[in-house]
Amino acid sequence: MHILVIGAAGMVGRKLIEALVREGGLGGKPIERFTLTDVVAPTAPAGFAGKVETLAADLSTPGIAAKLIANRPDVIFHLAAIVSGEAEADFEKGYRINLDGTRYLLEAIRLAGGYMPRLVFTSSIAVFGAPFPEAIGDEYFSTPLTSYGTQKAISELLLNDYSRKGFVDGVGVRLPTIVVRPGKPNAAASGFFSNILREPLVGQEAVLPVSREVRHWFASPRAAVGFLKHAATMDSAALGWRRTVTAPGLSATVADEIEALRRVAGEKAVRLIREEPNETIIGIVAGWPRNFDARRAEAVGFVADRSFDDILRAHIDDELRGKISV
Amino acid sequence: MHILVIGAAGMVGRKLIEALVREGGLGGKPIERFTLTDVVAPTAPAGFAGKVETLAADLSTPGIAAKLIANRPDVIFHLAAIVSGEAEADFEKGYRINLDGTRYLLEAIRLAGGYMPRLVFTSSIAVFGAPFPEAIGDEYFSTPLTSYGTQKAISELLLNDYSRKGFVDGVGVRLPTIVVRPGKPNAAASGFFSNILREPLVGQEAVLPVSREVRHWFASPRAAVGFLKHAATMDSAALGWRRTVTAPGLSATVADEIEALRRVAGEKAVRLIREEPNETIIGIVAGWPRNFDARRAEAVGFVADRSFDDILRAHIDDELRGKISV
Repeated sequence: MHILVIGAAGMVGRKLIEALVREGGLGGKPIERFTLTDVVAPTAPAGFAGKVETLAADLSTPGIAAKLIANRPDVIFHLAAIVSGEAEADFEKGYRINLDGTRYLLEAIRLAGGYMPRLVFTSSIAVFGAPFPEAIGDEYFSTPLTSYGTQKAISELLLNDYSRKGFVDGVGVRLPTIVVRPGKPNAAASGFFSNILREPLVGQEAVLPVSREVRHWFASPRAAVGFLKHAATMDSAALGWRRTVTAPGLSATVADEIEALRRVAGEKAVRLIREEPNETIIGIVAGWPRNFDARRAEAVGFVADRSFDDILRAHIDDELRGKISV
Repeated sequence: MHILVIGAAGMVGRKLIEALVREGGLGGKPIERFTLTDVVAPTAPAGFAGKVETLAADLSTPGIAAKLIANRPDVIFHLAAIVSGEAEADFEKGYRINLDGTRYLLEAIRLAGGYMPRLVFTSSIAVFGAPFPEAIGDEYFSTPLTSYGTQKAISELLLNDYSRKGFVDGVGVRLPTIVVRPGKPNAAASGFFSNILREPLVGQEAVLPVSREVRHWFASPRAAVGFLKHAATMDSAALGWRRTVTAPGLSATVADEIEALRRVAGEKAVRLIREEPNETIIGIVAGWPRNFDARRAEAVGFVADRSFDDILRAHIDDELRGKISV
């Protein structure tokens, strides 16, 4: 089996590749070959005996998509995107990377002829825009309030149409917000959801810029990798021509996060969270979805995290070698 | 006021231009100038004292959009599209005309700078795909089952995002199926909805290929022109960033159409309808929407036809100089 990962240097891409290498196969078939690409050359995974090609390439450059699929990978993970904030700040770049890039890939596959790979596409809950119902169901309409969400919603429509026409076998997954994101605190408006857990676990302070009542929709990196593997191997016919699902997340408040931290790491960890309200972030977060009814994805076998305690323990196992240092 | 009509040679375009010329203005402002374009040069409207420029141009050719807006029309009606059947048969042409054309227009407007015209875009109920609820509400999701519907749904998303970013002042209208279409019977799968009324009114036979129980969603050419004029003049802020509305139509069965024909033109006209079931057309029509709840459009002032009798009488007035010849 030959697997192409576009966006292989990102956090989700790296975690996915690690898991695939560790497991040696996908859906019961051995993996012989990886093609890994991103705008910066991804590092080849350690411990993989098969063939690995890594290359720095920008999918939004005409001609690149055809090169990436020249050896007809069986499964393509298209995870490449610029994030919401950047797509909002740089309108042209957002459409070029997040829309044209996806369209070039679909066109390259169509024009290859006699080739219909499984294409797993990461979409986003940003395809939905406020005002929201209490829980956003599988038939709720897409009214994105960002260019990023617009680009993802358009890509979903293209994935459906190219699949319906028999040009590709697409499955899209709207990922929840990933917690706990490994690494350093970053400037993303959603960063605090991870920061308030990740930093205290290693004895560092973290800033909470919003109220503890804020509710949002989460998945661990482990669950996200599980979604992508399932999307790559499931029977896509179960989705009809509505090829993108809202992945099942965990709806939780900041208070729920903090209580999980207290249970798993103790009061001392919780005391490292400093409340420092930030009106800009409060405003941005107010427009985000809080809860979903993802029964369609659950019905076709996508599996959510069970609790925030589990999310925390997975982070401690995967990123901290099992050790809390507070 | 300077008005640009793209797709000016089509039936809706011609009816719209006739109405604007007859009324001499739009939203209380006099019209001084028309720019009329289509893939074939539109004919200049009779009886208009102002300036008219007509040109044959293909919006999907790079550079054309910038030329069309060079003189900064105040209102742009973008009605140009290839129809559903052709977009399904010619995948590349459909995306080029129905998606790239729209995007070129939006980009030309954005790049003009300091220019934010009202852009009226004709979308379609083809953005919805079966299975449907009993009546499709304003928050029902877009899951088109044709490439045409996909291209329209994508254009709606672009219209929202370009409006939200302040690049254009867009209003989209999902037109119902137009009856009675003037002219000759054509090959479109929906043609019979008009044929069974138009032909008997002039003493000609018409074929009914589906059951009388078939229900669908209709508007007269007069109502469609009314929707476009309203979309051009309404306060777009009332739509927020959900800039496309399902125009209010009339939900009716084929039997309702036939009863209206009986009331307006008598039994002799009805006898000219020959039932000749066509499995292909029955299959296509089975996937079409039957009814909508278009309260959002009604709340912002769009006005539907009141009855099929009215639709018939308008056709007789506008196309037959008031005279039934059966």
